[in-house]
Amino acid sequence: MELRELGEFGWIAGIREKFRGVPSGESLGIGDDCAVIPCGDGEALVVTTDMLIEDVHFLRAVIPPYLLGRKSLAVNLSDVASMGAVPIASFLSIALPGDVSAGWADRFTDGYRSLSEEFGVPLLGGDTTSSQDRIAINVTAIGRIARAKVKYRSGARENDIVYVTGYLGDSAQGLLDIRSGVYDSPFIAVHHDPHPCVNEGIWLGNQPEVHAMMDISDGLASDLSHILEESETGAEISIERIPTRTTVELAVTGGEDYQLLLTVGAEAADRIAAEYVRHFGKPLYGIGRIRSGAPDIIWSDNGEVVRPQWKGFRHF
Amino acid sequence: MELRELGEFGWIAGIREKFRGVPSGESLGIGDDCAVIPCGDGEALVVTTDMLIEDVHFLRAVIPPYLLGRKSLAVNLSDVASMGAVPIASFLSIALPGDVSAGWADRFTDGYRSLSEEFGVPLLGGDTTSSQDRIAINVTAIGRIARAKVKYRSGARENDIVYVTGYLGDSAQGLLDIRSGVYDSPFIAVHHDPHPCVNEGIWLGNQPEVHAMMDISDGLASDLSHILEESETGAEISIERIPTRTTVELAVTGGEDYQLLLTVGAEAADRIAAEYVRHFGKPLYGIGRIRSGAPDIIWSDNGEVVRPQWKGFRHF
Repeated sequence: MELRELGEFGWIAGIREKFRGVPSGESLGIGDDCAVIPCGDGEALVVTTDMLIEDVHFLRAVIPPYLLGRKSLAVNLSDVASMGAVPIASFLSIALPGDVSAGWADRFTDGYRSLSEEFGVPLLGGDTTSSQDRIAINVTAIGRIARAKVKYRSGARENDIVYVTGYLGDSAQGLLDIRSGVYDSPFIAVHHDPHPCVNEGIWLGNQPEVHAMMDISDGLASDLSHILEESETGAEISIERIPTRTTVELAVTGGEDYQLLLTVGAEAADRIAAEYVRHFGKPLYGIGRIRSGAPDIIWSDNGEVVRPQWKGFRHF
Repeated sequence: MELRELGEFGWIAGIREKFRGVPSGESLGIGDDCAVIPCGDGEALVVTTDMLIEDVHFLRAVIPPYLLGRKSLAVNLSDVASMGAVPIASFLSIALPGDVSAGWADRFTDGYRSLSEEFGVPLLGGDTTSSQDRIAINVTAIGRIARAKVKYRSGARENDIVYVTGYLGDSAQGLLDIRSGVYDSPFIAVHHDPHPCVNEGIWLGNQPEVHAMMDISDGLASDLSHILEESETGAEISIERIPTRTTVELAVTGGEDYQLLLTVGAEAADRIAAEYVRHFGKPLYGIGRIRSGAPDIIWSDNGEVVRPQWKGFRHF
């Protein structure tokens, strides 16, 4: 069988099955944005790793190396933030072919450093090597958090309000613009230089009433379904309340916005949303509610239940 | 400037310089086999990451996927062991081109799992993606250890005895055999399936008289020089005492044996070597002594100082 027939999710499921025989003790692995490794008294480290491959995740001719450096770290810091943790270290592995100039490598490193400095995350190690023809990048990021404060996908509860931290669909529109050869689109900047919600994630991590959290990397519909699966519940989402500058379809199905998706206990939701605005000068966007009776996601548009046929929308 | 002119070490030096502005707090980064992240009361996690690229680090047509899976984890467990730590988690990122079969991926995972099971190291996460034409693998491994027990390269002291845990040069001979088309050589098995000294490293980590430790991945001469640089000292090494089944030259300059290299306080050395034999049923090989007067490494052969001109031997 070809691997593409099995698919990525098929292979991952196979890996999970194979590793059932290797107990992970108190550590928690595959299933959330980060693994959680308890250490010391009541503390935990969270760990995430992401690989970026040239011509799969980025085009060398399109993304400036400075922004690629930033993005390589950003997507990992976003995973750390989504657990509520403070990022404390990163590790960078990079394979560079011979036709990459020292200047390219330098600008890549400058970009990586700029985001490291912005959030005070030291680079504690990594690996550099050559490759035949394409760039490969792997970043591992580590965060620290009190064990009791870790936010999991499995925490959503009946009647929780579902929030997102910002506009959705920008990155997907940027990717469409790149593919159409429209290089002066403002959305391309969002696609190339996503801003991880590090401080937002830490602040939200400190609120006990935030029950479940993850970052939106695959698209709202897909990522919300992960929370619902892990929490064994459903949700009602009001399409007209989803913040977007593009289309609802892109906002719901487009990935790589790296906003946070969270659920908050209904009794505390207004207070937390108000404090969030005061703290960050921007709103939390309430887009719906957790409903245990709902089968997966029920979408509504100004009160009318709709059954969208979005392209790229995966059934779950 | 082409990156190859700058060289890997030049770029790494540049990275270290660039990141001086991002303080690492109590964590220790680049310079040892693992970064050390203190957590909790007196505990630390050690973290290492290694990237393997097809046609740079391995040939798909030569190494069986099962062994490649084992080796991908083994080289990282070796780094964890060299700090004296107990490995507690690994993370696997892998990019696979479309012409890799599901069977190949399955055997790779089986190999990775077999070593995970051997040492009880759970797989806590990772990333799977496609690539255009070549396989890229990145593994991050994490170990746990009491902070006071961590073995650094910088710990070697005057008169310490220098030990290695096993035969050197086998892996390099295996690589030569592969390149010569001699596929029935026993050394190829060592090159493809190195055994990380996990239990040896943990045991040695518990001995306070073990002052410095690292694993031999680049070759004895190169790796010992790292200990000497970090410890600001020199060493006398007796060539005739270096354990090898191949040639002294391969034993000294060949990499990827993944034995441990350590220095032990002179007063405790005989006792620790004797206890090691009782515990593991194999000897620690004493090959020389730390000498602060010596400029880097002084090599001797049966008492006569020699100035070897080994090919591939880097001056330092």
